[in-house]
Amino acid sequence: MKTARVAHSGAIHTATPVDGDSTARLRLADGRTVAEADVVWLPPFDVGSIIALGLNYADHVKELAKELTVTTQDEPLVFLKGPGSLVGHQGATRRPAGVAFMHYECELAVVIGRPARNVRGSDAMAHVAGYTVCNDYAVRDHLENWYRPNLRVKNRDGGTALGPWFVPAELVPDPHALQLRTLVNGRVTQQGSTAQMIHRIPALIEYLSSFMSLQPGDVILTGTPDGVVNVSEGDEVVCEIDGIGRLVNHIVGDAIFGR
Amino acid sequence: MKTARVAHSGAIHTATPVDGDSTARLRLADGRTVAEADVVWLPPFDVGSIIALGLNYADHVKELAKELTVTTQDEPLVFLKGPGSLVGHQGATRRPAGVAFMHYECELAVVIGRPARNVRGSDAMAHVAGYTVCNDYAVRDHLENWYRPNLRVKNRDGGTALGPWFVPAELVPDPHALQLRTLVNGRVTQQGSTAQMIHRIPALIEYLSSFMSLQPGDVILTGTPDGVVNVSEGDEVVCEIDGIGRLVNHIVGDAIFGR
Repeated sequence: MKTARVAHSGAIHTATPVDGDSTARLRLADGRTVAEADVVWLPPFDVGSIIALGLNYADHVKELAKELTVTTQDEPLVFLKGPGSLVGHQGATRRPAGVAFMHYECELAVVIGRPARNVRGSDAMAHVAGYTVCNDYAVRDHLENWYRPNLRVKNRDGGTALGPWFVPAELVPDPHALQLRTLVNGRVTQQGSTAQMIHRIPALIEYLSSFMSLQPGDVILTGTPDGVVNVSEGDEVVCEIDGIGRLVNHIVGDAIFGR
Repeated sequence: MKTARVAHSGAIHTATPVDGDSTARLRLADGRTVAEADVVWLPPFDVGSIIALGLNYADHVKELAKELTVTTQDEPLVFLKGPGSLVGHQGATRRPAGVAFMHYECELAVVIGRPARNVRGSDAMAHVAGYTVCNDYAVRDHLENWYRPNLRVKNRDGGTALGPWFVPAELVPDPHALQLRTLVNGRVTQQGSTAQMIHRIPALIEYLSSFMSLQPGDVILTGTPDGVVNVSEGDEVVCEIDGIGRLVNHIVGDAIFGR
């Protein structure tokens, strides 16, 4: 069953949807039913290491990195995000005053369920607990380096939105056949399919677990297709992945975060 | 008072030293006294974001990055480490089979105690809860890029040792006047002073808090002086900072982490 984690009346609860995939009403673990307006959504699982992929969709590589001479074909481009960047469904992401180009990235987030160390790709999917939707923001003004985005690009407050649901792996027959899209204020601005990933989930787990242990709660953000556009204060950004969820996020101004 | 966190008989305890700074005997919060041999040391505080500095001591820049044309004078070089790399005092760090150059880095770790956002350097020290010692390992074989070390360099299991003590800020009158050194199997291989930092603690907090909120438990690893040498399976590595602690770490082999 799909589950969420929400704060309600000062406590944190596991919750499930009342009607299909709708987020409008939630059933808390203690049986009570609550309206979405009465909860704060948290990331839907206890998040460990946040491992993000750069340039893992070929058309997005073309879009962003036209001058790139090194390809990502041989080895995944991975980097870390910090827990301070996390926000849940309906959360706010700050757009710093004075930046020229800040964009969303709709990504399938893969949640590790069993420790993984030196796992072969052929065995990797047994280490996946499930999935959620991620909106992995980037402030591109400060890009020094395509290969290792710096913290000002990728680690701002609210820059890693996760949710609304944790979807167990058994409900997702093929994670590489999912349509994903982003809507800004209701208009579709990004569309793609997880079939387009350059490095697929088994290869990512094999690669990562060859040099670090993956633990339950670690999450792999698998990259985004082309179609990233600038967002502005007041925008509603919705990242949808069919069968996984519809993650809503709000861009707020930030007059004092100037750098 | 200096405090540690240890696992003993299946539970986690806060502990304090029985005799001065010695780690030999510990008093648990419940009053019991235990021997070091009977505990597993954990990082001495609840660790949030792990923010590391590259090239923050001028002589270390010369040692490592002779070909570097861009300086770090203008802006600190910061990157994230993940929680999976953490280990406590007396912990084991894996040296992967087949790597040519893996080295320690003795660093003063600054622990945030109050949320910090757009904090001026002149106010920054009020946000520091205290300090501990870090041994921030690097596997240099895989260095693609001095400016943004990749996960194979800096995020291996046991690659971020912290401890033994959390030392409250009020016990450290001047964190920029501390002698630090590393001993490999009893021989001093690295010596320096926190006075040599290029970007000092107030400047680091001002810089980081200008684009991300710092939270209690976040830790800033402030960089290392020159004197990094290769370590081998079986080595005992001790990082000492006067007034902060003596962090012992053991290098173990890892036949299967081959990358």
